Amino acid sequence: MPKDMQLREHIVGTIESIFKKYAFQRIETPSLELNKTLSGKYGEEGDRLMFKILPRGRKLEKFSGMSAAEMSSNAEEALRYDLTVPFARFIVDNRNDLTFPFKRYQIQNVWRADRPQHGRYREFTQCDADVVGISGIIQEAELLHIYNDVFAALGVKVSLHLNHRKLLQAIADQYGAADNWIAFTIALDKLDKIGWEKVQLEWEALGIKTDEKLRNTLEKGLELNTESLNSLTDWLSNSSDAKEAIDELKQLAEILKINPLSNAELKLDLTLARGLDYYTGCIFEAKIPEANVGSVGGGGRYDDLTSVFGLKDTPGVGISFGLDRIQLAMEQLNLTEEIGQSPVKVMIANMGEELSAHYFQLAGTLRKEGMACEIYPSAARLKKQINFSGKTGIQLLLISGETEKEKGIVNLKNLETGDQKEVPEADLLIAVQEALK
Amino acid sequence: MPKDMQLREHIVGTIESIFKKYAFQRIETPSLELNKTLSGKYGEEGDRLMFKILPRGRKLEKFSGMSAAEMSSNAEEALRYDLTVPFARFIVDNRNDLTFPFKRYQIQNVWRADRPQHGRYREFTQCDADVVGISGIIQEAELLHIYNDVFAALGVKVSLHLNHRKLLQAIADQYGAADNWIAFTIALDKLDKIGWEKVQLEWEALGIKTDEKLRNTLEKGLELNTESLNSLTDWLSNSSDAKEAIDELKQLAEILKINPLSNAELKLDLTLARGLDYYTGCIFEAKIPEANVGSVGGGGRYDDLTSVFGLKDTPGVGISFGLDRIQLAMEQLNLTEEIGQSPVKVMIANMGEELSAHYFQLAGTLRKEGMACEIYPSAARLKKQINFSGKTGIQLLLISGETEKEKGIVNLKNLETGDQKEVPEADLLIAVQEALK
Repeated sequence: MPKDMQLREHIVGTIESIFKKYAFQRIETPSLELNKTLSGKYGEEGDRLMFKILPRGRKLEKFSGMSAAEMSSNAEEALRYDLTVPFARFIVDNRNDLTFPFKRYQIQNVWRADRPQHGRYREFTQCDADVVGISGIIQEAELLHIYNDVFAALGVKVSLHLNHRKLLQAIADQYGAADNWIAFTIALDKLDKIGWEKVQLEWEALGIKTDEKLRNTLEKGLELNTESLNSLTDWLSNSSDAKEAIDELKQLAEILKINPLSNAELKLDLTLARGLDYYTGCIFEAKIPEANVGSVGGGGRYDDLTSVFGLKDTPGVGISFGLDRIQLAMEQLNLTEEIGQSPVKVMIANMGEELSAHYFQLAGTLRKEGMACEIYPSAARLKKQINFSGKTGIQLLLISGETEKEKGIVNLKNLETGDQKEVPEADLLIAVQEALK
Repeated sequence: MPKDMQLREHIVGTIESIFKKYAFQRIETPSLELNKTLSGKYGEEGDRLMFKILPRGRKLEKFSGMSAAEMSSNAEEALRYDLTVPFARFIVDNRNDLTFPFKRYQIQNVWRADRPQHGRYREFTQCDADVVGISGIIQEAELLHIYNDVFAALGVKVSLHLNHRKLLQAIADQYGAADNWIAFTIALDKLDKIGWEKVQLEWEALGIKTDEKLRNTLEKGLELNTESLNSLTDWLSNSSDAKEAIDELKQLAEILKINPLSNAELKLDLTLARGLDYYTGCIFEAKIPEANVGSVGGGGRYDDLTSVFGLKDTPGVGISFGLDRIQLAMEQLNLTEEIGQSPVKVMIANMGEELSAHYFQLAGTLRKEGMACEIYPSAARLKKQINFSGKTGIQLLLISGETEKEKGIVNLKNLETGDQKEVPEADLLIAVQEALK
């Protein structure tokens, strides 16, 4: 509906303008990819929830008699399931035409045949920004600042959670979970839901011994500053992984100290564990503490985006925004009223269809200056026209019948106050601008 | 690719801003519709070219053993084939929440499994604006002005062809084609391709007798003014259809006389025959005379949008823009160079990663004022960084190593002229703005 679109456009427009300021460029990829490009990239669940396309013509005839599994794997085309795999395919296909480092953003729909529920739809928009073909901590700083700037522009305080894949690895090693890496992180990821005691029980079952230091560090989180990073160095002193991670985080801390985040609380959250088979360096998650919608963004650094398509050594770092959840959060926080207001505030009443040319002229005076303006399309009763105005958020009605036209005046009726006043046609634009202030 | 997206965004942004000025509101509908909503709405070709979705799980198992035809008709979901049928479905579903007259625009992709060719893709963007729930010629005038304004803003002269369904009906009646209506219009539609003699031959085979008056009027087209409309009245004096059409066209002519089209040549083109089973009043087509891309837009008035979904009496009028063809035309006319230029004109050279925080500050000075700015992400050789700038359209390189940083200055290197000058950090923004002028 138009009201939803206004809010959506406001959010997307805000994000886009900030991506552009940070020199990200927009690309798009087709909605349909080859089935073989997507299949097997998202695990068993992905293959099950992927929308595949029924063949046409002779190819469909060949499907007659196939088993369900055969049909599913013989489908030629499938709808995009996320933006990352198509982006990797895009990089490989266009590697000779792109200049690296390549900073791209992409705002497109993806499709998943999941059970729809509040805030989760079968078609939804993903919004990703990535820098590929380069390493260097400055990108991480830029991406955190992008989160900061976007939510500042939307008027929402954001909380940013930061972790480093190699720090997690070092902790796992130190506490005897080197061989139980996945189980270790799965339990860790549940800490804020199930609490320390239960996580500890799960770990003990795996032979992982915890201590108070671990508990405190995980439960409280850390500030990103030299002091906490030095304490990590002392704690994880035997790990070269930890040293590497801490060096990077120190560089990041220095950039952010001199260029602080104005609208975000940043926490080094050692419980954060996003898609760990994919990310290799810093990982991020964005939340809106005042709203109850879960994570509104996330991302991280990866070493290898494209080798599955035969191109090695494409490192990068990226973030995404969860548009539907941001929209829900803004609704929860009552931030949508202003944005959802009708962009059309002026309507010219239609007092007779023989006056159409005249109305068109009046509208032109405003439209020429970029002001949106409606002409009621038929000479209905004025009451009906005022009723229409009320329903559509019009604030100012311009009334000009045969008499007013001859006198060269227009009646401005303020629909909120009921006030009405005569204005010479020549002063129309200024009078309307004045009345809408 | 980013360059294509810039041009596309420029065109779409231009159209959107003008739709908004004329008080159209944006809606979106899902990409997937029920197969039963779309099937049978686009003729045999539509059913053949529609992308249908392979079912999942148990429903897919049921497909095992079905014939091709059964699979095709038992598919539950299909990809949107145009915007009109989903819009009609939207109107019916939301009729109680919409305020009529309802002016909506919609810019979304549609899918057709056609053979791809230059300027014709399997996924393409349609861009429609419609006013529904009302009659009244003022809409036709607005839509013609929208065409005018959009192409004026894009810097392209446009030629607008106008006809009226009832005028065509009157001509067919007068020349004995009342019973051969479809064959009559199919031949007429080919006039500019096959010429008068061949059209005449086709008509004669149907028993339609032509004369010089008909030939002249069709071949030359008419101006939309009182004189030509009066001549039509004389010519088609026995037809009540003609009278109705001419009355409407006279109203339209009056509005356009007082509010002329600044950037469009308007022709009353009696050979124009668009989707005549659907349109019932004025019909339009937009062409760019200087480019060879065919029609770049079209539309018209209809009496009945929604009765196929059970809601009667929804008249309306609408137009569409052919984005891909507009893009091709602008490329043909060399209008894309300026638009396709990199939006990022400034880059900060990276002279050492320990200076990252400093570079971030410099970039912040520009970004805070809305200026896009790149920081080269690693301390590569300067030559490599200059090479990157050249490839990506950067015009100005800001160089600040340890020495410059201590002195509080930045070197501005103009990559086009090769000029370089020192600027105090405090004056950076002004100096950059100056250099980019």
